[in-house]
Amino acid sequence: MTNTPSEPGFQRIGIVGRPGSDSVVHTVQRLTALLNELELAHAVDNSLAAIVPHLQAESRDREDLGQWADLIIVVGGDGTLLAAARDFAAHQKPLLGINRGRLGFLTDIMPFEMEARVQAVLAGDYVKEDRFLLEAKVVRQGEVVSTGRALNDVVLHSGQSIRMIEFELHIDDQFVYSQRSDGLIISTPTGSTAYALSAGGPLVHPSLDTMILVPMFPHSLNNRPLVVGGDAQLRLHIGPQEGVSPVVSCDAQGHLEILADDELWVSRFPYKLKLLHPSDHNYYEICRTKLGWGNPLDA
Amino acid sequence: MTNTPSEPGFQRIGIVGRPGSDSVVHTVQRLTALLNELELAHAVDNSLAAIVPHLQAESRDREDLGQWADLIIVVGGDGTLLAAARDFAAHQKPLLGINRGRLGFLTDIMPFEMEARVQAVLAGDYVKEDRFLLEAKVVRQGEVVSTGRALNDVVLHSGQSIRMIEFELHIDDQFVYSQRSDGLIISTPTGSTAYALSAGGPLVHPSLDTMILVPMFPHSLNNRPLVVGGDAQLRLHIGPQEGVSPVVSCDAQGHLEILADDELWVSRFPYKLKLLHPSDHNYYEICRTKLGWGNPLDA
Amino acid sequence: MTNTPSEPGFQRIGIVGRPGSDSVVHTVQRLTALLNELELAHAVDNSLAAIVPHLQAESRDREDLGQWADLIIVVGGDGTLLAAARDFAAHQKPLLGINRGRLGFLTDIMPFEMEARVQAVLAGDYVKEDRFLLEAKVVRQGEVVSTGRALNDVVLHSGQSIRMIEFELHIDDQFVYSQRSDGLIISTPTGSTAYALSAGGPLVHPSLDTMILVPMFPHSLNNRPLVVGGDAQLRLHIGPQEGVSPVVSCDAQGHLEILADDELWVSRFPYKLKLLHPSDHNYYEICRTKLGWGNPLDA
Amino acid sequence: MTNTPSEPGFQRIGIVGRPGSDSVVHTVQRLTALLNELELAHAVDNSLAAIVPHLQAESRDREDLGQWADLIIVVGGDGTLLAAARDFAAHQKPLLGINRGRLGFLTDIMPFEMEARVQAVLAGDYVKEDRFLLEAKVVRQGEVVSTGRALNDVVLHSGQSIRMIEFELHIDDQFVYSQRSDGLIISTPTGSTAYALSAGGPLVHPSLDTMILVPMFPHSLNNRPLVVGGDAQLRLHIGPQEGVSPVVSCDAQGHLEILADDELWVSRFPYKLKLLHPSDHNYYEICRTKLGWGNPLDA
Repeated sequence: MTNTPSEPGFQRIGIVGRPGSDSVVHTVQRLTALLNELELAHAVDNSLAAIVPHLQAESRDREDLGQWADLIIVVGGDGTLLAAARDFAAHQKPLLGINRGRLGFLTDIMPFEMEARVQAVLAGDYVKEDRFLLEAKVVRQGEVVSTGRALNDVVLHSGQSIRMIEFELHIDDQFVYSQRSDGLIISTPTGSTAYALSAGGPLVHPSLDTMILVPMFPHSLNNRPLVVGGDAQLRLHIGPQEGVSPVVSCDAQGHLEILADDELWVSRFPYKLKLLHPSDHNYYEICRTKLGWGNPLDA
Repeated sequence: MTNTPSEPGFQRIGIVGRPGSDSVVHTVQRLTALLNELELAHAVDNSLAAIVPHLQAESRDREDLGQWADLIIVVGGDGTLLAAARDFAAHQKPLLGINRGRLGFLTDIMPFEMEARVQAVLAGDYVKEDRFLLEAKVVRQGEVVSTGRALNDVVLHSGQSIRMIEFELHIDDQFVYSQRSDGLIISTPTGSTAYALSAGGPLVHPSLDTMILVPMFPHSLNNRPLVVGGDAQLRLHIGPQEGVSPVVSCDAQGHLEILADDELWVSRFPYKLKLLHPSDHNYYEICRTKLGWGNPLDA
Repeated sequence: MTNTPSEPGFQRIGIVGRPGSDSVVHTVQRLTALLNELELAHAVDNSLAAIVPHLQAESRDREDLGQWADLIIVVGGDGTLLAAARDFAAHQKPLLGINRGRLGFLTDIMPFEMEARVQAVLAGDYVKEDRFLLEAKVVRQGEVVSTGRALNDVVLHSGQSIRMIEFELHIDDQFVYSQRSDGLIISTPTGSTAYALSAGGPLVHPSLDTMILVPMFPHSLNNRPLVVGGDAQLRLHIGPQEGVSPVVSCDAQGHLEILADDELWVSRFPYKLKLLHPSDHNYYEICRTKLGWGNPLDA
Repeated sequence: MTNTPSEPGFQRIGIVGRPGSDSVVHTVQRLTALLNELELAHAVDNSLAAIVPHLQAESRDREDLGQWADLIIVVGGDGTLLAAARDFAAHQKPLLGINRGRLGFLTDIMPFEMEARVQAVLAGDYVKEDRFLLEAKVVRQGEVVSTGRALNDVVLHSGQSIRMIEFELHIDDQFVYSQRSDGLIISTPTGSTAYALSAGGPLVHPSLDTMILVPMFPHSLNNRPLVVGGDAQLRLHIGPQEGVSPVVSCDAQGHLEILADDELWVSRFPYKLKLLHPSDHNYYEICRTKLGWGNPLDA
């Protein structure tokens, strides 16, 4: 988590963002103006380019953008960055997040300070974090039938609230437990401030190589959040279900169907997200702001 | 919660049960044999009668049964009794539950002891509890568009996990809070050992006249279970939602559609369930057995 | 919880407060000035009178004050009001709380609005709540050896953290559970926003007639907060302890020694606290302010 | 966590145990009989030797034993092993635990299987785990005034329940939060099944290099367990306290006094405990047994 000023500067900047928001459009306009001024090559994701009026920038499709760019700037909230992380992780291109409003855990440049912050990063003044993603595979009779990936969490759930599912959990081929619950949240440290936290999971520093397993409304009172190593191979065997159609959700954005007797395999995705922050980035300060933790005494 | 031996004995016994289970069929056969032997008038719910072979008993439809009987015996699990409670509460007929297997909080006569226990109850040896139900109304532009009732809980939820809804809660016309969460569980004391407990709610003695409000995966860390009076008038105003179709579930069995800007009104149902138990019924003993609480020291 | 304007106005005002704070002294001076202006008889608790310079008011000892006054005004925080509630409950004199700074759950008149608020209450414009207290008795070999009372909570604990005690709980002579834990919090609804809340207990509306039992760091995972009726007779039998000196705390202010094999009896104190509030008092608004609950949507 | 059969066998066995228990005495007698039969050099801790009748074994003081032995066998419960871990960790001698009764997380050889299990371990058939310890230092005006070490947890607490303390937490010189609570539990993964679990902390696999920070009854609702890296340098600055004498407890066995304005430093102890288990040791199986997790479905 240190900057590497000797690394050559970024030459080709890709821009992606959440469509449908005036503030995103406005920020993208300011960003392209800045990059034009700096005479840096840049391109905007097709779907975003279509909605920005008077855009003076090249546009590319998302796959092409991942190949071409050496830095991706994401304009939007944490949800937009989650999608970008899943799309660009395999390209191994670093991401920088500009928030469209409220402070985010992942997108920590605020709109009002955008020009100064981005310029500093482009000048090599940043910290780089590796964040790992999860890969989910639905396995039916020995065959992988669908896959997904997630930066925050893979969630096995009953597909609608108020229905219980039953499953067995194996970790590294060791049987761990069977559980009756609304589902199980499998979270990265990155996701530990998101859905897993609402479900009673611990905060886990994003630098750690761990997964956090948090049961959702477990039927039994003795199920607690469980923290295991990031290299764990999880295998969930879905029990027989009457009239339930469970679902596997990746970052609450992509959804995979899963059936009784199927298995869900979850493990670390081979490529890590390279996430850039301004050099004064402070994880605990974001926690204090967003979670309302106490300030220094007498202050 | 005391027996009233001076009350005239039960003369007309209605029998309902969960179809689709051999053990239920077998128990109903034993029960009708017992009632024939005792020369007590009895009738079996139509849908159950259809699946019991060689049934030597009258059959009636559910509504008719509620009018005719002066005691309803329910054969099945707690889920079967929940349905019977909702159906027969307005008839003000007492219910007695015979479990088809594992001990239940509501159906506390075990199959092996059925004949002796039922005979004792018919002889006036029982305790009677009043359990209140909740009534839920979905209100759209001032009009009630659907209603439901519940013995355990009314749950407002996002209809699928991993989606947040936003709503305002008013109690007795006082604004309480706005909340972003997967939903809100509104539980009776009866339901406090069910879904509300999985969600972190307290156990509440079934004799108390209270409602328990338990947030489901709240976005904010400062939402906690809230216990209010049984006469509280709850009004939940659904906020604007993008792409979410929230649902109101009654005892996880009946489901009402609810839209953005609708209101959900929840209050006590005017009629109480009269629930009979064998006279040695002990709530805390069931808690110890089902929840695994500690036995007496040195025992 | 309604005001009773026909009740004759208050004629003799007692004033108590937390010594040792300049803001309390200042508020008491303003209060006596107001009462002098209104030509209302008033007297100040001896211990407080001793530290207020230039006090133009009679002073009385606490017991005498309870007999004489028909309204007690408490200047301080919730802790000061807890002590006053225990001291004056048996006199059946109503209490009104003036906070010395931050909003309290019990002392809800802020210093800046003191004159207007107190004058309104004296004119009969108030709401009156009954809040019940708990009575604790330590029983050794059948004899009561010490007693205490509490408005918030009676806490049985190991006397120092990181020590477990073992005890059996009986409610109304029914065995409930044995428990190994750091202790047990027995809270009134009034106390449900205090220590019990930190330990995971639910919020309970102060109008309810219930006790809340919250285990402290229980050894077993299946112990949960339990809500029982306000008329419950609790009996805790202390198990054999090696090298532990358990303690019973009342409102965290008074402490009773308890030994192995002793019993702790807890039940409702016969006299209720009569707590006055300005007529626009709103419990949920105080919850929102102090607990950080969400405000109305779009507001 | 694999066995290393090529390692030369153990030649000098030290034996320690919890005095004061007949079952420990009996197990030690069986153990020395076994080692005599195997003609293996062994010695018993002085304090234990004094209470074992007819002991046919050498005795040594604890420090000497740590120097001399190449394997320490611990007879007792997890508490006895915690003390041995703290005493022998710096000698870097492996520990093997024989439980005196109930299954323990650390002492996982049961008395009835003792001879066969110990003989297998002596023959090289075992798994070895590294478990890290914590080191605690109380620092007053820049000087270390006392130190302790712990295998389970270092706990800063108010010294008696029902008292709040206030402190600031810094991790690696970054300010994290100020907190008002009864204290803070700083746990290793080993300790995550002990006191930290009772306080709401997550289970953390013992192979992970993390610390778990669990607040004790925090005054604010937004404090949650926090998991940080095992190399974290924790610094807790104690705030000004009225009438409170906080204490630092190590494994709930050793206690250090700490004053207002002191600092508590906690970091990883340089030497790790080498803990041996029979080769079929299974962490999750112990969790299932001790925590009551669900068994395989249909089993």
